[in-house]
Amino acid sequence: MANTGRTGRRPGKSDTRAEILAQARTLFAERGYPDTSVRAIAAAAGVDAALVHRFFGTKEQLFHACLVVPFDPTAMFHEIAAHGPDETSVRLVRGFLALWDSPETGPALTGFFRRALAEPETSAASRDFSSSAAVTTAAAARALLPGASEAEAQRRLSLVLSQIFGLLTTRRLLGIEPLTSWDADDLAAAVAPAITHYLYGELPPEKENDQ
Amino acid sequence: MANTGRTGRRPGKSDTRAEILAQARTLFAERGYPDTSVRAIAAAAGVDAALVHRFFGTKEQLFHACLVVPFDPTAMFHEIAAHGPDETSVRLVRGFLALWDSPETGPALTGFFRRALAEPETSAASRDFSSSAAVTTAAAARALLPGASEAEAQRRLSLVLSQIFGLLTTRRLLGIEPLTSWDADDLAAAVAPAITHYLYGELPPEKENDQ
Repeated sequence: MANTGRTGRRPGKSDTRAEILAQARTLFAERGYPDTSVRAIAAAAGVDAALVHRFFGTKEQLFHACLVVPFDPTAMFHEIAAHGPDETSVRLVRGFLALWDSPETGPALTGFFRRALAEPETSAASRDFSSSAAVTTAAAARALLPGASEAEAQRRLSLVLSQIFGLLTTRRLLGIEPLTSWDADDLAAAVAPAITHYLYGELPPEKENDQ
Repeated sequence: MANTGRTGRRPGKSDTRAEILAQARTLFAERGYPDTSVRAIAAAAGVDAALVHRFFGTKEQLFHACLVVPFDPTAMFHEIAAHGPDETSVRLVRGFLALWDSPETGPALTGFFRRALAEPETSAASRDFSSSAAVTTAAAARALLPGASEAEAQRRLSLVLSQIFGLLTTRRLLGIEPLTSWDADDLAAAVAPAITHYLYGELPPEKENDQ
């Protein structure tokens, strides 16, 4: 390996940065935030702790850098919408299953989801996850329900989200069969009509005591 | 309070037993299995640790006693089925929302669900939860899909389960809006058509590589 990196251990800054992030994601997901030190992350990435601080700042800032969802929701939802409403639901489910089944993005997403669920909803992990879900939902609203009011889009997409999170919970966290072994395309086809109902079907009218 | 109990602190054996179970459920849910001692449970219930052991055996046996789902799934599903297939879906969702929203059964169920999700799927907590889900699913299959093959009932009910768990995840664990504030009956009406699709709708044919 050429000795060109800032620390002399990695070929380039962007590789080192990506490696630190990857190790941090893994350790935060496995051990949780309090039990993961910057020193341990640095060691796993094969760099000095000082370099981790130089790239990312504090441990908390590094954690937030890890939280950046490793996909671009706006691009994903526009790609999905480009194929027309008849294909939206099946492509949406397929897209999320691919993200979570993938060895590149799956473990980090699963780890953060698990951590958010494990802690009280007032915890930083849970709030971070909910914020991330809100960013994703807003992108979905713009791409998939451009004509809907914000309140209606929120209601419809929170139902969609509940089904997507339910699939991930049963398939990726609890390992419940036959959902876990189900071929992703077939599973997407089975779930699509439910998503279509949530996106475009008739819902009960909103009441005053509903938020 | 009459001094008639075995320890002289509670009026009767069944009250004491129920009180120990209630305190154990709360503490296991709040602190997790490793950090909850029989002594702490006994103290919370106002009895001696020896009495807890006499009633329930070891800490692990007490934990398993807590796992017994605090409702009778067979009775619940038969009651649901008695109103005919048109009402099955909405009653099913309403029934689960009631269980999880209730101050009596909700905290224990939420605690065990959270714990199962927090730990790896090979953990005892996750396996116990999955076993409990399997018992519930089998009862649902008998009551709601009596004509279906076991494999078909499993596929349909795992989809139903994914939506139910997704609602609980977003509504009870993550506090995502507007799902959390949504009136339970309205939410059940919004979700029912998706459940109807999973129970009675057309699913893609089962493939050999699906389990």
